[in-house]
Amino acid sequence: MTSPSSARIHAQQLSLMLVTDSLACGERSLPEVVAAAVAGGVTCVQLREKLASGYVFLDKARALRQLLKPLGIPLIINDRIDIALAAQADGVHVGQTDMPVADARRILPPTMLLGWSVETPAQVEAANDLDVDYLGVSPVFATPTKTDTAPPWGLEGLSRARRLTVKPLVAIGGISTDNIGALRSAGADGCAVVRAICSAPDPQIAATKLRRAFDQGVI
Amino acid sequence: MTSPSSARIHAQQLSLMLVTDSLACGERSLPEVVAAAVAGGVTCVQLREKLASGYVFLDKARALRQLLKPLGIPLIINDRIDIALAAQADGVHVGQTDMPVADARRILPPTMLLGWSVETPAQVEAANDLDVDYLGVSPVFATPTKTDTAPPWGLEGLSRARRLTVKPLVAIGGISTDNIGALRSAGADGCAVVRAICSAPDPQIAATKLRRAFDQGVI
Repeated sequence: MTSPSSARIHAQQLSLMLVTDSLACGERSLPEVVAAAVAGGVTCVQLREKLASGYVFLDKARALRQLLKPLGIPLIINDRIDIALAAQADGVHVGQTDMPVADARRILPPTMLLGWSVETPAQVEAANDLDVDYLGVSPVFATPTKTDTAPPWGLEGLSRARRLTVKPLVAIGGISTDNIGALRSAGADGCAVVRAICSAPDPQIAATKLRRAFDQGVI
Repeated sequence: MTSPSSARIHAQQLSLMLVTDSLACGERSLPEVVAAAVAGGVTCVQLREKLASGYVFLDKARALRQLLKPLGIPLIINDRIDIALAAQADGVHVGQTDMPVADARRILPPTMLLGWSVETPAQVEAANDLDVDYLGVSPVFATPTKTDTAPPWGLEGLSRARRLTVKPLVAIGGISTDNIGALRSAGADGCAVVRAICSAPDPQIAATKLRRAFDQGVI
């Protein structure tokens, strides 16, 4: 069973994924930060709310869907498939401590996309037999956002993952304008950032710089 | 839109609901405590895991489903509709901070039951227009299990709720063998307990006593 990935999302739409962190937005509202990030060049948004109640999570998901749908920007929900279903999001992203991907795929409608965080080469290989639409190579660098992560892949690890699969790869963890170009050159179809945008003084400028650096690769 | 409740669960199956608390089980495994509770007279089980990852939650849900299915005991999942779907549980219970019931009902298959915690008479009346299968009258008494609760309903509040709806009512909060009979007399179709069973030295004996006291009502 291989993935009809192209039907659910195009690799180009994964170029620059914003993974949200409501706390990192400070006094700015989440939709405000997301709107600025999209104006700057973010190509898809993953709503991550590890602490919110279901009520608040769904409310935020709906607000983002309303914002992003007219712009054609995919909205992906982290972990909570039920929230994704209720908000009619474009898909779900699950990590290694979330529901197993095979189970997630079984309860998702065929049209909804599924992303999966991979922490080891063995997981990349396993994904080739799973109906997963992209892989989050996590963490590609050491990161302060998540403290419970596996050892970083690094550029060499990312290149190795690239050789193991044709599925779209989205690098995440410790990404900045300084290293994002190298990730593209190492084989990433996209990069996902949290603080580099959510904590930036101007999320639109931050997104513009990240997107430009990614699109250029290493010059 | 009224509820075809009888098609999804019979009021008698709600007589004594065990709401799980893995921590309160101490060194005993959750399936061990649940099996003992069912042997003692528990009529349905609600799996509540407020701190577990999706991976662990689904694992526990599957273990309980395997245990309970052959016994004909309904398994209800607290909050996480996606876990309920993946584990093929019988239904879901949502509280006031979880996904709104109307949204939950929309993403649930028609065969799966839906319970809703109500904290005010206005919510009981609202439920009459919702496709909800039972109401959790919460908390009926003050309780140490949850600290974020609304003011207790008390016996008079429960009687008032009874007059406002024909939907099955399940009282929860601070219930013991000493007060469970009075709850039936005040109009509860069932009672839900957490610590009275999970923390009991012998969960089977505790369940037996609770069930007997509930079935007798106030003598």
